[in-house]
Amino acid sequence: MSQRVRAQAAIDAVVEKAEQQGFGVAIAVVDAAGALVGFARTDASLIGPVDVAQKKARTAAMFGMDGVDFAEVARPGGPIYSIEHTNGGLISFGGSVVLRHGQQVIGGIGVAGATLDADEDLARTGAAAF
Amino acid sequence: MSQRVRAQAAIDAVVEKAEQQGFGVAIAVVDAAGALVGFARTDASLIGPVDVAQKKARTAAMFGMDGVDFAEVARPGGPIYSIEHTNGGLISFGGSVVLRHGQQVIGGIGVAGATLDADEDLARTGAAAF
Amino acid sequence: MSQRVRAQAAIDAVVEKAEQQGFGVAIAVVDAAGALVGFARTDASLIGPVDVAQKKARTAAMFGMDGVDFAEVARPGGPIYSIEHTNGGLISFGGSVVLRHGQQVIGGIGVAGATLDADEDLARTGAAAF
Amino acid sequence: MSQRVRAQAAIDAVVEKAEQQGFGVAIAVVDAAGALVGFARTDASLIGPVDVAQKKARTAAMFGMDGVDFAEVARPGGPIYSIEHTNGGLISFGGSVVLRHGQQVIGGIGVAGATLDADEDLARTGAAAF
Repeated sequence: MSQRVRAQAAIDAVVEKAEQQGFGVAIAVVDAAGALVGFARTDASLIGPVDVAQKKARTAAMFGMDGVDFAEVARPGGPIYSIEHTNGGLISFGGSVVLRHGQQVIGGIGVAGATLDADEDLARTGAAAF
Repeated sequence: MSQRVRAQAAIDAVVEKAEQQGFGVAIAVVDAAGALVGFARTDASLIGPVDVAQKKARTAAMFGMDGVDFAEVARPGGPIYSIEHTNGGLISFGGSVVLRHGQQVIGGIGVAGATLDADEDLARTGAAAF
Repeated sequence: MSQRVRAQAAIDAVVEKAEQQGFGVAIAVVDAAGALVGFARTDASLIGPVDVAQKKARTAAMFGMDGVDFAEVARPGGPIYSIEHTNGGLISFGGSVVLRHGQQVIGGIGVAGATLDADEDLARTGAAAF
Repeated sequence: MSQRVRAQAAIDAVVEKAEQQGFGVAIAVVDAAGALVGFARTDASLIGPVDVAQKKARTAAMFGMDGVDFAEVARPGGPIYSIEHTNGGLISFGGSVVLRHGQQVIGGIGVAGATLDADEDLARTGAAAF
């Protein structure tokens, strides 16, 4: 099935829920290489989340780890601290989910602009709709 | 009306036409400041166009000039040659159209990945649907 | 009212107070997208603050958070640590204030070059004069 | 005399003339090292000129050549073509003027956003008021 259509479905699911919750967000879906497949920014979003959502999605896809798991190891004191400076900048907190086909990593979704917990929940909503 | 919804309508129009024509393309819609509002990449697109479409859209929005007009002045021998190195990199050929509200520049759309002529036509299709 | 004139009023207020206090400072005012609207550097300022003031202003505007609040969440151990590597580099300490029109974020002001406390106080002075 | 005050006088002169002429512009004044001293963007300016004005001012200051002279040598076919890729990006066309104290280069002013001829005239106006 079309990667573009699946990305759009994920984005639509996040937009709908975020707008119901009153959050302005940016949502990015990338492929396994971290290249953008789809993106949307809701009207209530600030500008900062535009870059953050993309870096979140890239982090999940490029390392095959959800943001919350990446945070455990990439934070100060963690075993791979400093890795967030690679690949043009990564995000070591929640709000991103790996997209898989079976075991294989095929991409990532990142959501930014709401609260940390809400971004995380929205990213999971999007991944489920992918 | 929602900027996000209008961007999505523009992207959908480009996707439909590009797929009918058999082209793989990336489509970016940005606001007047060049920040991404919406993006899609069709399944047949290569990766290079992902960045090109965004830079095309930014060029149109940030200078209020369609790519074909910008090309006239920003190419080697043109009066403002070298401007393409500003603002993180601009694109001095066609495939981008300024989005306006009356006289005011409110953004830009860029399409990349087809032929130059087809990118240009697709960008105009998207702008008309915005 | 003119955004430029308001930015200039904010900058003038900061310059006057900083020079009275004997501090050399750089002051930046940006719009909601983080693009520069106005900037001044006093004669006593070092060069480092030129970039810092701009990044402070961008941080406040792009995330709608004053620097002191952003610092709480973006520092090592904070929930969104690593976000300072996005958007070309952000500043997770004080000296920046969000500029609003009612509820809406319309920009940010950043001051750098004095002490941290003085930068913070000066940024608030500038925001009040905006 | 204060470098800041002189920069402000130059910027004010450019703003007044540009607004009379109906142009939206960005104006940057930098020191001999290319570091920003003062900056303003008029309300009618697009976003692209924000970076262009700064790169113009830097070009003039860092090489002690007005933009129109730099263009002669730094364009395709010119003896130092490719130099525009140094120093974070330079601008090889008009709209910038070297600021001097006697023979000594002490900075540069750059104006962007109007027509090429008007930018050039405005930069000369600003330099005269510096």
